[in-house]
Amino acid sequence: MTNHIAMNENLLGIIAGVLTSVSMIPQLVKVIREKNVEDISLLMLLVLISGLSLWVWYGFMKDELPIVLSNSFAVLVNISLLICYIIYNKK
Amino acid sequence: MTNHIAMNENLLGIIAGVLTSVSMIPQLVKVIREKNVEDISLLMLLVLISGLSLWVWYGFMKDELPIVLSNSFAVLVNISLLICYIIYNKK
Repeated sequence: MTNHIAMNENLLGIIAGVLTSVSMIPQLVKVIREKNVEDISLLMLLVLISGLSLWVWYGFMKDELPIVLSNSFAVLVNISLLICYIIYNKK
Repeated sequence: MTNHIAMNENLLGIIAGVLTSVSMIPQLVKVIREKNVEDISLLMLLVLISGLSLWVWYGFMKDELPIVLSNSFAVLVNISLLICYIIYNKK
């Protein structure tokens, strides 16, 4: 593999990661703004956080920075949703 | 890299992919059942489908089946959401 191809793959991964990361923001903003978590499934949030964490691990094992970064960001967003769930579900 | 390690990485990726894929199903089921797409942002759905498609491309370039499969599944789920959006938003 040449450096040229490797750079293109990383660039592709970074663009893909930015797009999938950006698409997650509105849900978090909506939940924080409306303080409403009734549409969120706790079970699915836990399954998602587990899956994303395994993707981060996979990215480390494969030494692929785009996978590590985008899935770490997704873990942070979904842990924030989990915290919102715990805070707002009590009401 | 030994075959043993490679197999573990693929297994890890497959488990990660199954978890993140499973976590997407309830939203699609909810939208189909309730015929309600008012919580979905069309712009973000298009950004997400673009990002996921680039991840599929990335997976092909890197020759990583777990990435190709899980992101292809996610593209299918989100194109289904897009079709629901187009059908139910007219109402």
